[in-house]
Amino acid sequence: MRWLLAPDSYKGSLEAAAVAEAMQRGIERADPQAECLLRPMADGGEGTQDALYAAVGGQWLQFPVCNATGDTIMAPCLLLPDGTAVLEVARIIGLPEAGDSPVAQRSSRGVGQMLAALLQSGQRRIAVALGGSSTNDGGAACLAALGLQLLNARGQRLDGALQDLSQLFTLDADGLLQAFADVELEIWSDVDNPLSGPRGATAVFGPQKGVAAADIARIDGEITHFAQLLDARLQRDTRHLPGSGAAGGLGYAMLLLGGRMQSGAQAVARHLGLAAALQRVDWVFSGEGRSDSQTLAGKAPACVAALARAAGVPVSLLSGAVIADEQGALAGSFDGCYSLCNRPMSLDSAMQEAPQRLAQLAEQVARTILAARAAA
Amino acid sequence: MRWLLAPDSYKGSLEAAAVAEAMQRGIERADPQAECLLRPMADGGEGTQDALYAAVGGQWLQFPVCNATGDTIMAPCLLLPDGTAVLEVARIIGLPEAGDSPVAQRSSRGVGQMLAALLQSGQRRIAVALGGSSTNDGGAACLAALGLQLLNARGQRLDGALQDLSQLFTLDADGLLQAFADVELEIWSDVDNPLSGPRGATAVFGPQKGVAAADIARIDGEITHFAQLLDARLQRDTRHLPGSGAAGGLGYAMLLLGGRMQSGAQAVARHLGLAAALQRVDWVFSGEGRSDSQTLAGKAPACVAALARAAGVPVSLLSGAVIADEQGALAGSFDGCYSLCNRPMSLDSAMQEAPQRLAQLAEQVARTILAARAAA
Repeated sequence: MRWLLAPDSYKGSLEAAAVAEAMQRGIERADPQAECLLRPMADGGEGTQDALYAAVGGQWLQFPVCNATGDTIMAPCLLLPDGTAVLEVARIIGLPEAGDSPVAQRSSRGVGQMLAALLQSGQRRIAVALGGSSTNDGGAACLAALGLQLLNARGQRLDGALQDLSQLFTLDADGLLQAFADVELEIWSDVDNPLSGPRGATAVFGPQKGVAAADIARIDGEITHFAQLLDARLQRDTRHLPGSGAAGGLGYAMLLLGGRMQSGAQAVARHLGLAAALQRVDWVFSGEGRSDSQTLAGKAPACVAALARAAGVPVSLLSGAVIADEQGALAGSFDGCYSLCNRPMSLDSAMQEAPQRLAQLAEQVARTILAARAAA
Repeated sequence: MRWLLAPDSYKGSLEAAAVAEAMQRGIERADPQAECLLRPMADGGEGTQDALYAAVGGQWLQFPVCNATGDTIMAPCLLLPDGTAVLEVARIIGLPEAGDSPVAQRSSRGVGQMLAALLQSGQRRIAVALGGSSTNDGGAACLAALGLQLLNARGQRLDGALQDLSQLFTLDADGLLQAFADVELEIWSDVDNPLSGPRGATAVFGPQKGVAAADIARIDGEITHFAQLLDARLQRDTRHLPGSGAAGGLGYAMLLLGGRMQSGAQAVARHLGLAAALQRVDWVFSGEGRSDSQTLAGKAPACVAALARAAGVPVSLLSGAVIADEQGALAGSFDGCYSLCNRPMSLDSAMQEAPQRLAQLAEQVARTILAARAAA
């Protein structure tokens, strides 16, 4: 049997490649003759560059940029063989590195710095993987790094971190867009929230980045004010577009620069050639750390399942945890959804034992599949 | 598809019938046209009578007998349609009811009382399901209730509870065996330990019944002394037979009375007609509370798996927990071994949610099987 192993990472526990390898070990215990095609996936968040590099290779570029708290780091950009430069927001202003720093002081400037460097080095096809950011500055600092001037009432320039927006009085956007006129800019994301309001970046994603409940309305107002000024200056209405609320408002900034919003998982699947790989296999395994009703909202396993269904190939879900939705939509999207937990166990144990438990699970599911095919 | 659902109980959580029903609910969610044959299993321990009654019916008899701590209870005996009277040791001197009472004071007398009552009422085919006992008296009290006289050095009669054996000086076994001369006595057990020594009842099973580590050698010695006296008197060597160490030495007593030791699970499977049922189905689910390398030592799922393999029908294991052995023997005996745990969770949650989690698991495995058959 030929198997396609296309899992996302198990966040905080196993990278996608390690997940696929554990699946392969298990399958080969059930069927030593198995042929496994490993295609670790990603959804435009953390691990997107690694998944692409593992599948199609490319060239790593390094740029000195600011992280979310202002320290200079060397951040990677992956230049794919097809000429697309893939920038991973999580590796510039990612949540783990931001630690306990106040969200008001975090800034998306580093993303703007890298975009500027890519333009300067002649890149004209750029994909920005938006997931995993720690900032909530409406993308103001990113745009400031690309030439947008943010000014307070005394005409002094602001950096654009969240804490600066309360002083924003006026702005100068001259020349901001010209640099991107001949750039093909892709935005990879699985979020369709608008920039502000009840479904906006601050209200929905702010709390997990450290925005206090009591501050949501004020911060949402400051970000709205910034975007109203900028939209008005450029005669746009970008702040209302779906996805403008992604990555703390970086979605807004990227849309303003002319970016096309795409499903991160679908974009990665396209670069990985999943559709072609599906023509050569009998069964697909996908998975992620935790699967629930959110999985169907554009996460990597849902994208893999949709492609597999389209190709007529069965697809099973092997995740750390599987929380079934009442409507059975998750179960209906896969040919079996399984958790690697083999007994009552703590989250810590599940994460520590993930490689062994996952191999064990893959072996069991493979045994069931092989027996069913033999008996059919 | 036609399914045979033949699980054991999930001890402490779900009876075997409830396990089979949860499996059926899950399967029917995956395949509304499924035909399910429910055959809740047992292995000669707790739940053996219920499993038999659910499958083949019969007549319930009630007898007043002593429980392990000496209180009189009404205990059931199931008279099967084929004339076999099934006595379940767990329902007379079972572990849960014995509570925290000292093991020294517990007695197997009630089992002897019920055997005597069955003989008196004319039963000539008797099966004793040995599992789940709370006693460790070498079966002495059971035999005392059937006419064996145990005497101390002053010629006073002893009841035969564990605490009496230290005073045992001599015994009178006249007439003990005659009453069983024309009785077909089956012993249902999954234990092959001898009565005493390092693999004996006290050393291996004593601790889980409350025997302190410091008392094992002394108690093992007292039981050995009792059995030496009795074997010598009857010119037997019963205490060395495999299974004489079952149920705290009740195995010894039953063997002495002429019983034939059998696998409890196999005996139940025979009465349930599992071999015939297997001719009419496409797939089998079994399961139990916790599966590990011990499962293959004669537990109900191993018996179901062996019968299924012999009939050429695939068989999967759906248990509360699945602890794989290093050698892969458990995995090799089934077409997929699965735990109902769908996430990191506590034992309490797993037990409380068992019906829902098990239905969810059965649905997933059924989905995988259906897809594999369709794709084959």
